[in-house]
Amino acid sequence: MTTRVAVFGASGYAGLELLRLLLQHPEFEIVAITSEQRAGQPVGDAFPALRGQLELCFQASDPDAIAPKVDLAFTALPHSASARTVAVLRRAGVKVADLSADFRFSEPAVYASWYGEHAAPELLGQAVYGLPELHREALKGAELVGCAGCYPTSVLLPLVPFLRAGRVGNRGIIVDSKSGISGAGRKVDGAYLFTELDGNGRAYKPGREHRHGPEMEQEATRAAGEDVMLSFVPHLIPVTRGILTSVYCRPKSGLSAAEANSVLDRAYANETFVRVLPVGETPNLAAVRGTNFCDVAAFVDEPNGTLILLSALDNLVKGASGQAIQCANLMQGYSESQGLLGTALLP
Amino acid sequence: MTTRVAVFGASGYAGLELLRLLLQHPEFEIVAITSEQRAGQPVGDAFPALRGQLELCFQASDPDAIAPKVDLAFTALPHSASARTVAVLRRAGVKVADLSADFRFSEPAVYASWYGEHAAPELLGQAVYGLPELHREALKGAELVGCAGCYPTSVLLPLVPFLRAGRVGNRGIIVDSKSGISGAGRKVDGAYLFTELDGNGRAYKPGREHRHGPEMEQEATRAAGEDVMLSFVPHLIPVTRGILTSVYCRPKSGLSAAEANSVLDRAYANETFVRVLPVGETPNLAAVRGTNFCDVAAFVDEPNGTLILLSALDNLVKGASGQAIQCANLMQGYSESQGLLGTALLP
Amino acid sequence: MTTRVAVFGASGYAGLELLRLLLQHPEFEIVAITSEQRAGQPVGDAFPALRGQLELCFQASDPDAIAPKVDLAFTALPHSASARTVAVLRRAGVKVADLSADFRFSEPAVYASWYGEHAAPELLGQAVYGLPELHREALKGAELVGCAGCYPTSVLLPLVPFLRAGRVGNRGIIVDSKSGISGAGRKVDGAYLFTELDGNGRAYKPGREHRHGPEMEQEATRAAGEDVMLSFVPHLIPVTRGILTSVYCRPKSGLSAAEANSVLDRAYANETFVRVLPVGETPNLAAVRGTNFCDVAAFVDEPNGTLILLSALDNLVKGASGQAIQCANLMQGYSESQGLLGTALLP
Amino acid sequence: MTTRVAVFGASGYAGLELLRLLLQHPEFEIVAITSEQRAGQPVGDAFPALRGQLELCFQASDPDAIAPKVDLAFTALPHSASARTVAVLRRAGVKVADLSADFRFSEPAVYASWYGEHAAPELLGQAVYGLPELHREALKGAELVGCAGCYPTSVLLPLVPFLRAGRVGNRGIIVDSKSGISGAGRKVDGAYLFTELDGNGRAYKPGREHRHGPEMEQEATRAAGEDVMLSFVPHLIPVTRGILTSVYCRPKSGLSAAEANSVLDRAYANETFVRVLPVGETPNLAAVRGTNFCDVAAFVDEPNGTLILLSALDNLVKGASGQAIQCANLMQGYSESQGLLGTALLP
Repeated sequence: MTTRVAVFGASGYAGLELLRLLLQHPEFEIVAITSEQRAGQPVGDAFPALRGQLELCFQASDPDAIAPKVDLAFTALPHSASARTVAVLRRAGVKVADLSADFRFSEPAVYASWYGEHAAPELLGQAVYGLPELHREALKGAELVGCAGCYPTSVLLPLVPFLRAGRVGNRGIIVDSKSGISGAGRKVDGAYLFTELDGNGRAYKPGREHRHGPEMEQEATRAAGEDVMLSFVPHLIPVTRGILTSVYCRPKSGLSAAEANSVLDRAYANETFVRVLPVGETPNLAAVRGTNFCDVAAFVDEPNGTLILLSALDNLVKGASGQAIQCANLMQGYSESQGLLGTALLP
Repeated sequence: MTTRVAVFGASGYAGLELLRLLLQHPEFEIVAITSEQRAGQPVGDAFPALRGQLELCFQASDPDAIAPKVDLAFTALPHSASARTVAVLRRAGVKVADLSADFRFSEPAVYASWYGEHAAPELLGQAVYGLPELHREALKGAELVGCAGCYPTSVLLPLVPFLRAGRVGNRGIIVDSKSGISGAGRKVDGAYLFTELDGNGRAYKPGREHRHGPEMEQEATRAAGEDVMLSFVPHLIPVTRGILTSVYCRPKSGLSAAEANSVLDRAYANETFVRVLPVGETPNLAAVRGTNFCDVAAFVDEPNGTLILLSALDNLVKGASGQAIQCANLMQGYSESQGLLGTALLP
Repeated sequence: MTTRVAVFGASGYAGLELLRLLLQHPEFEIVAITSEQRAGQPVGDAFPALRGQLELCFQASDPDAIAPKVDLAFTALPHSASARTVAVLRRAGVKVADLSADFRFSEPAVYASWYGEHAAPELLGQAVYGLPELHREALKGAELVGCAGCYPTSVLLPLVPFLRAGRVGNRGIIVDSKSGISGAGRKVDGAYLFTELDGNGRAYKPGREHRHGPEMEQEATRAAGEDVMLSFVPHLIPVTRGILTSVYCRPKSGLSAAEANSVLDRAYANETFVRVLPVGETPNLAAVRGTNFCDVAAFVDEPNGTLILLSALDNLVKGASGQAIQCANLMQGYSESQGLLGTALLP
Repeated sequence: MTTRVAVFGASGYAGLELLRLLLQHPEFEIVAITSEQRAGQPVGDAFPALRGQLELCFQASDPDAIAPKVDLAFTALPHSASARTVAVLRRAGVKVADLSADFRFSEPAVYASWYGEHAAPELLGQAVYGLPELHREALKGAELVGCAGCYPTSVLLPLVPFLRAGRVGNRGIIVDSKSGISGAGRKVDGAYLFTELDGNGRAYKPGREHRHGPEMEQEATRAAGEDVMLSFVPHLIPVTRGILTSVYCRPKSGLSAAEANSVLDRAYANETFVRVLPVGETPNLAAVRGTNFCDVAAFVDEPNGTLILLSALDNLVKGASGQAIQCANLMQGYSESQGLLGTALLP
């Protein structure tokens, strides 16, 4: 049976990507889309790319009014605004896949130290962390999902199998990520102008300054069964979509390249969206562009005691909207990959 | 009923794009893919993006062996090689949508002066020019289609309605096109290196030097019912996909902006893939990226006697593989837009 | 003798480019730089690229206070603000090379219809149009120069020799320009975000809507000795620097490619900064990046009666700051190419 | 007194960059330039950007014939070819700054295991490693310099002060570098096409596979006075110029952010070309584009025991040709920064 959905925050990049993917999905029917800035505008006027694709107008966000018309909502709003909207939707019995950070943390105090006081702490107990490869069973039938962040997804998918298997130490892990600019959303700020980023690149918030760090640590700790600590250094590179991540960790005892690869192979043999590359191949952004795949690979520098994990994903798909739909497929009991099997745009 | 198809030249950019689009198409089943360079390789090994999407190996081109297994072939081979392959396929009764220039020209002499002697001139009589918006009826049930070139498509869609209506002169037409680099295919040449093209741009083969010029003139002349002449100046710009075209022509008598827009509106009111933009909007490449749409717009500089026609399309979709599938849909009696309604990747 | 200079509006792109070029110039000494936004900041703090290069702080614009300390000022301010500042500087006897549009028009009414009422119309009589290849003698010793716009420079350099020689008609001229994004300055606007422009391109303000059109027409008319009309269609392409222009005109009588080339050769044989390319070569942006050169070439489509003129320049150098320094060299009696002979950054 | 120089391998990217920089240098006079491919061509015909800048023809490499005409040669040839040419030049008494890997290694066996047998091992004893900030005294008056590689320069400048001070451990150091595409030279290979790299990125040769790794280890070991081991993971990002490097190491005992910054400050207080950024700022590529600067910064993640060192440089300048000229300035007794103080192209 078709699921009627609303997209809150539909004019941002994650919101638009939800529309693109939902339009290809046979089971979800878009019945309401919200945007404060664009309220009243037909979607095709605001975004010529959508002309002839979707005959709806953006409306201002009014969860009370929208709730009765939908079964499930995707909320792609700024944090805190998201929690307030979700609270209304949940009270009305609408299932929610939330793309903000509001329902990713199990500890309100951790959330608060990075995002400020939580607007709906009473809902944290029912929220499931939305990374299906880690929490599939909990997601089946969940009613509120806090979809995983883009950077954390790129880190956890290659790293968690090693933590679960107890093959790497829980200290001194380094995460060096390179993100496309759409990760910042459609933020109108001088730093994101074409002229400032073309041919440019830089690290930002290195070490313990970026709020995706504690999110990674929460899930890494859960997987390891002991406290895990990461130094996270995100970088901006001049591409629109995609995250390349390199994770450096210290094997607990000897770990050969072959063993490292078989850890990944075993973990992902039955996963549709995590592709373990043939030994020796490195992931690249073009191969996942526009798709819900995350490509991963492992290398070992034995003399120097380093396990090198590489991943590539599209931050707007597996890092946001595709993952939200993957979660929603589980929530609704559809095939998990429904509507998500499109091929990368090459070249 | 499903159509079994082969893609000849499947490892080039147009070939890969055929695979991407055919994988989304409910009626075409890919049964054979050829590549001389990649023969024997599983498609997912050669192109990691296709891993898990298509379980086939590239094979060397052998049309005699492939013909019995397929109903229709897409040939994306270099000119002349294409004609030779098509001749074999046609003798075996296989329908063909050819993406090379070999079946675009009705006059063998014109073809010969740009591409050399034709390898299968006996087939020219049965070939239909593959631009559905101009030749839909002839394409229905056609068995051999010479799909329109990328630049000609970008020029003819905005221009032909004015020629048919007799609103513009047949001399002094100027075509200034800006093409993405994939238009050159995957040509391994120093001029197409990232380092040479990043931040760069240039005109090439200006005036009467590019072989898409006579193709445009053939179809423009057909539409006008009198000899049409164009000066064609293609440019390279540092994008991967897309063609922006500006056509400048001289209205025969007074032509207001409103009249110009209504010429386009009337011509394309019922077309799925040609979107006439609201008055005053200009087409952009992002809105058509990865799609089969061609966005068009008209402006008039009355004091200077100039009609300005603008278009944007994706050279690998509406300019090549999407158009070939649109033609094949007509050849097979499917809905013309079947499998071609994906949304542009934004941003 | 060294000339003490101030740069007004030094934190914009044209202003920064003035600093870069002036730092290489042996005769100009930068003594004051203004920026409202950055007032009080050391230049190296605001722009790490300039750390260790220039030990000055930005100051708020106060032409009365700055005038006594300088011999010549470069004003790179928004129009109207520029005229007001220039008026103060001129009253104090400071020479001015202005990079805004305020002193480019001889007719106040034409200026007013595009930019609003002029803030210092009494100065228009003393202003010289700052395009040295056209107005060298008037620039020598001029005290107020309205430096030519970026698009007009790219159009006038290839076109004017043909107008002066009476070889092309004065109607139906088409100008199709492709500009890098820095042409918009550091404008913080959603349309100029990296994510919106990467892989994208579009025409804007086509026909008679862009205010550089009347500036071109003023100078073209002056050169032709009769009213010249142009349809101007600017485009944005995803490069940071550079303008590629294609001008299409109608030869008055037969004009061969050889004649067209010799018109350019004769006009620019003794010019340092206009390079006429060998017959058959087309200009490209990389060859002029970061330099004061404008590369030009001519092609003729005789059957279709079209002269095709191509040019490439760096909009921030020959289209703005380099040209301003070239003018200032003439104003001060220095060698015209002083400080402007750097080589393009390749690749 | 002017130094007459030759550039061997002048048509590659490092060679062209040498020409650009030497043309701005008051003391070096270019008297011969070689290129096998371009032999006989005027430089301005081969590279329009150099038209009007340098009136020389490329010639085939003939070090015997060229040696008598020059005082110093820059050799930018492939490894091994370089050593053979250098041997001839040195026999003729010509000083050499070599940009290949041939004279960077003190141990012939290490060289041989990465590059094959050395073509002129007898010269290794006289060669100085060309990184002036580390080996200034030895470079003064040296006659043969093996200029440091691009990646090693980006790693050693931030790292060596900590190794010299004994503040970091000698095991488990991680180097994650992101390089522009010009690092591959003008290599005509499908992997370096614009269409393959635009919007793309990937790691390559991770761990212990890239030959710049042992070069870093040689110099790091020299600085530390004990064996240092590094895991080196280079990445390609879609920019033309520049390397961003992040080095992760383990402080030997507690190291605060303030201490880390003061280690850098002390090391580089008197260096022109290494700019230690203000605390909290991260280096970016645009700030060093086209310049000989290397910007560096230090951050500390104390809870996780990680020192994070960041650097940015232009691989063709501080990573190659600028550094070679800096070395040559020392070899000739000129001011070390002579000709190298140009400002970055912004934006």
